[in-house]
Amino acid sequence: MMTHQPEHLSDAHVARILHQFRQHAPLVHCMTNDVVQTFTANVLLALNASPAMVIDPEEAAQFSGFADALLINVGTLTQDRQLAMQAAVTAANQAGTPWTLDPVAVGALTLRSAFCQQLLSQKPAAIRGNASEILALAQQAAGGRGVDSLHQADAAVAAAQQLARDYHTLVIVTGEVDYATDGSRTLTISGGSPLMTRVVGTGCALSAVVAAFSSLPGDGLLNVACACRVMALAGKKAAAQAQGPGTFVAAFLDALWMLEVAA
Amino acid sequence: MMTHQPEHLSDAHVARILHQFRQHAPLVHCMTNDVVQTFTANVLLALNASPAMVIDPEEAAQFSGFADALLINVGTLTQDRQLAMQAAVTAANQAGTPWTLDPVAVGALTLRSAFCQQLLSQKPAAIRGNASEILALAQQAAGGRGVDSLHQADAAVAAAQQLARDYHTLVIVTGEVDYATDGSRTLTISGGSPLMTRVVGTGCALSAVVAAFSSLPGDGLLNVACACRVMALAGKKAAAQAQGPGTFVAAFLDALWMLEVAA
Amino acid sequence: MMTHQPEHLSDAHVARILHQFRQHAPLVHCMTNDVVQTFTANVLLALNASPAMVIDPEEAAQFSGFADALLINVGTLTQDRQLAMQAAVTAANQAGTPWTLDPVAVGALTLRSAFCQQLLSQKPAAIRGNASEILALAQQAAGGRGVDSLHQADAAVAAAQQLARDYHTLVIVTGEVDYATDGSRTLTISGGSPLMTRVVGTGCALSAVVAAFSSLPGDGLLNVACACRVMALAGKKAAAQAQGPGTFVAAFLDALWMLEVAA
Repeated sequence: MMTHQPEHLSDAHVARILHQFRQHAPLVHCMTNDVVQTFTANVLLALNASPAMVIDPEEAAQFSGFADALLINVGTLTQDRQLAMQAAVTAANQAGTPWTLDPVAVGALTLRSAFCQQLLSQKPAAIRGNASEILALAQQAAGGRGVDSLHQADAAVAAAQQLARDYHTLVIVTGEVDYATDGSRTLTISGGSPLMTRVVGTGCALSAVVAAFSSLPGDGLLNVACACRVMALAGKKAAAQAQGPGTFVAAFLDALWMLEVAA
Repeated sequence: MMTHQPEHLSDAHVARILHQFRQHAPLVHCMTNDVVQTFTANVLLALNASPAMVIDPEEAAQFSGFADALLINVGTLTQDRQLAMQAAVTAANQAGTPWTLDPVAVGALTLRSAFCQQLLSQKPAAIRGNASEILALAQQAAGGRGVDSLHQADAAVAAAQQLARDYHTLVIVTGEVDYATDGSRTLTISGGSPLMTRVVGTGCALSAVVAAFSSLPGDGLLNVACACRVMALAGKKAAAQAQGPGTFVAAFLDALWMLEVAA
Repeated sequence: MMTHQPEHLSDAHVARILHQFRQHAPLVHCMTNDVVQTFTANVLLALNASPAMVIDPEEAAQFSGFADALLINVGTLTQDRQLAMQAAVTAANQAGTPWTLDPVAVGALTLRSAFCQQLLSQKPAAIRGNASEILALAQQAAGGRGVDSLHQADAAVAAAQQLARDYHTLVIVTGEVDYATDGSRTLTISGGSPLMTRVVGTGCALSAVVAAFSSLPGDGLLNVACACRVMALAGKKAAAQAQGPGTFVAAFLDALWMLEVAA
């Protein structure tokens, strides 16, 4: 069950944090899946951040040392990539670089499930997944007990809160409404469009944006919630202009580029 | 030579099968090349199907067990990927998941040629290639005899029919006109646009759509021919709106999303 | 310091060479990074060239033998890919296929820095990088002496000229203004748009286009400078039509497709 009431993220925060983000222009080391590389890079560029994809184990460890943030997305995990990701996470932790986990399809598939479990204890700054992924991650961490008896959306929020407390991290559950929690405070973020689910990579790109926002100073929970809101606002604006998922992609990147948030 | 007369695919079938497809919304496991991952995923999403790219050998085998269809595209084959693809095909056959082969550039390049040969005897539900690829596959299967003395387009259709009979599969040869055959019946599909050849991945994405349609119940040959027609119709519509290959990509995905076929 | 005065590339050359390029329609073997594969392919297709990405070491060596040009881009280098790239370069040199190096982020990252150093002595037809990359490559080749005391833009041009002379190659430094040099003659190319830096892959795609143009007969320096100008012209035209980086991508491919250069 949910352990406290969520509150709604205010756009006054979003306006301020987005401005700060564009000034800061973080360099984001993305170790992500094969399918979403281009879109992820273009989303970050449209927000004035700098993406870099470095994947050799030694180079990935070197790069995590001077990047502002690191993203680990296990969508097309292989054993080789797991080694490189682990090297990057270790180096990021040594350098104090915040890193974010996107546990794509964790649960049924064995390699990624074991790897996500292994990563949980390595101090991610944030975890971003959909309800099924956050539930699977929490259940696995808890040895399978508990949360599956609840309605899925509520259960995922409760699972997110528990994960956040157990691992001292921020957890974001995305869906029609997004939730961001540090375990004791939970923010809800609305917006977006169903068209975002008919284009590959919107969730994965959000995780990269969460990673990027997590590098900002200030209130960590507000920062990652702001990442969700920025993507939701751009999604809503783009959907209003698009004729389908093809024109949506271009309109979405344009919307991120031009986004002004009314405080 | 062609062993029987092709007949033209009727749009009455296409309207019915496309409706069924969108209801069914198949989950398609795509093991495809590096260049076309995003476009392939977006094409499937625009048709209301669900793409998933899982590439670790163990995970790929697990995933093929619960996917509705599997695509094997050898465009950027490596020895590691070959192992993963073989594991997925074996698991797909055990689970009864239909799988489709796209033998990109088979013939001159040795690794993929040997692998395609090895896969032929493993019961693909369908094979989709251009005339050169289908000819190369058939000649190689036949030890180099025969079909090369004919005009290429006719020769490819004859080769497709022979391959379909020899391997109890469906073969699709695409070009200005597409042909789909089970070896005893051959359907022709028209439509499309030359602009489709100036955008990377239209052929590879068609193979993913063929894989997806092959998971439907009913007449297998009609189903895969319908996949060709759906892509051709969207291509024609998009070309009428586009100013070049850039705007074509967006218009094509929009057209798939909104496609209504007049029965 | 610069060792001779640059001269401005004339569009009379560009009109002639672009026409020749479209007629020739080179087949370009691209061994490039994970992030830019689709965009690179679509840029080449929009210019009527044919891209092909072949990455297994044995197949890559086979393919380099009959391609018109080879691109080596180290953006997402791994040890496996290094082996395949080396095999392709060796085969390209044996077959007389010109090959182009894009030394992405050379300098700080060790694997790619050592590999780029190793490749320098293997007769690249051309090298394309930004100022930092060309400076890093030249400093590394020179054992760290020299060019860093100059203003970066001038220093990069001097470094490019030195590299070109030392390795008998063509070097292109891109930025607000591009420079192409053979060490004794240097051409400047203007045009482009700041939006090109907010879309991933414009630099990497330019390297593929440089590789493609390097396969033309005639004046090698003019040919690769023309590649830069074609991209700059399309970028400028696209930026005038785009509302942001999303619509820019589509407009850029359309602009390449329709580009007519006034002689």
